[in-house]
Amino acid sequence: MLSNTRTVRIEWGDCDPAGIIFYPRYFEIFDASTAALFEHALGITKFQMFKTLEFTGWPLVHTKARFLKPTRFGDDVTVETTVKFGRTSFDIEHRLGLKGEICAECSEKRVWTVRDAGGRLKSHPVPEAVLAKFRG
Amino acid sequence: MLSNTRTVRIEWGDCDPAGIIFYPRYFEIFDASTAALFEHALGITKFQMFKTLEFTGWPLVHTKARFLKPTRFGDDVTVETTVKFGRTSFDIEHRLGLKGEICAECSEKRVWTVRDAGGRLKSHPVPEAVLAKFRG
Amino acid sequence: MLSNTRTVRIEWGDCDPAGIIFYPRYFEIFDASTAALFEHALGITKFQMFKTLEFTGWPLVHTKARFLKPTRFGDDVTVETTVKFGRTSFDIEHRLGLKGEICAECSEKRVWTVRDAGGRLKSHPVPEAVLAKFRG
Amino acid sequence: MLSNTRTVRIEWGDCDPAGIIFYPRYFEIFDASTAALFEHALGITKFQMFKTLEFTGWPLVHTKARFLKPTRFGDDVTVETTVKFGRTSFDIEHRLGLKGEICAECSEKRVWTVRDAGGRLKSHPVPEAVLAKFRG
Repeated sequence: MLSNTRTVRIEWGDCDPAGIIFYPRYFEIFDASTAALFEHALGITKFQMFKTLEFTGWPLVHTKARFLKPTRFGDDVTVETTVKFGRTSFDIEHRLGLKGEICAECSEKRVWTVRDAGGRLKSHPVPEAVLAKFRG
Repeated sequence: MLSNTRTVRIEWGDCDPAGIIFYPRYFEIFDASTAALFEHALGITKFQMFKTLEFTGWPLVHTKARFLKPTRFGDDVTVETTVKFGRTSFDIEHRLGLKGEICAECSEKRVWTVRDAGGRLKSHPVPEAVLAKFRG
Repeated sequence: MLSNTRTVRIEWGDCDPAGIIFYPRYFEIFDASTAALFEHALGITKFQMFKTLEFTGWPLVHTKARFLKPTRFGDDVTVETTVKFGRTSFDIEHRLGLKGEICAECSEKRVWTVRDAGGRLKSHPVPEAVLAKFRG
Repeated sequence: MLSNTRTVRIEWGDCDPAGIIFYPRYFEIFDASTAALFEHALGITKFQMFKTLEFTGWPLVHTKARFLKPTRFGDDVTVETTVKFGRTSFDIEHRLGLKGEICAECSEKRVWTVRDAGGRLKSHPVPEAVLAKFRG
């Protein structure tokens, strides 16, 4: 299980005076889609991940996105999210589509973090228990 | 059919450094819930309402909200939305709950608008065709 | 010094397909205006308040707002914010105007909180040091 | 005049439960910074550009960003924005810094658009009057 697909309704308040989605909203959707992928694989929410795993977040190192076709309020878009794990980081790809056509694509590199003795975030190998769930 | 209930996931990005929802996000949820109520009653999205009805939006005149219990990322809250129609305006109530407990309540007064000959928004009686759908 | 006025630019991304501000953005502006009032009185940011005061936030109990005239991207609105202190809570009023005309009004009731021994937020009298700064 | 620098306050509501800025907010800041660059060069707001220029928006084709250091509520960050013009498109670079250190970098490719006879957006050469203002 290395991918997850979910449906998201584009809302009136996500759209700008051109009548189409204001693109920062796509990044909100992508961030939630990354969390949804982990929730689907692990069976627990990100909130529960903080409580039960060696985990203090997955800060974004870089992201890039291409915008191919606009979407509008009332559109129910699909977001297909896939992951490839490195040792302490992972790469995410999102493909956002409407009626079979790709509207936007995004990639992210994120780092798995834990807190060091001084309370600071530091990178840390993705726990084997997490990787095992993704291997399914 | 004068009410609608939907479920909304509170996301990481909806929450603030206190770890709970940043309250302006509730108003985004409430605005979308008003649209969802009409979509449920009319069978068309707000986008399609603009195309097919005498309708150019429902500007908010006033709103008020009470916040009783915080919600957090990972919470799947329910929003129950009801409407009472006046002649050119309508009153909306939202009750947002989690696991059977009310977390927030909101009321709104909105005006049904159309465009006058000069292109300006003006209030207009809620169309009979809309009212009929809500009477079900 | 019980009031503060600041200027806020309404941005493209704050506006919806009607070309006017999407009203939840007003609540973001009001929340930041409450923080700006305290920063103006105390001479420290909200971030610094957490570090140096008996303070763990000012959760909102209720709010209400009236919307009189729309604002648009490119508008530089003024927000005048005033406060009245109770013992453990305070009332805020915001008046948002453009070119001398009131566009929106908002009131808020918030509670001053600290953390109890168990780590939970509880209401607490507004510190005398804070009140003294507002008396100026 | 091919660059513009502005200061932006990071607000409480821009930050997530980790206490740092939620990165989609950076894209809101970058989008407004692109508009600010044009406003600085042309002497008119984006709203006025729609009224007075052959212009119906600058949709984003792609963007990428790197996040080097987090920022927090209360931080006053600087955003330096530069542009390079092509014929019908332009490339934007944003450098967001705090106290002399770069915290985030972003690049954008956007297309200058006008409406064709059928009302659809199409790419169009950046007007000479605009280019002349940037040559200053």
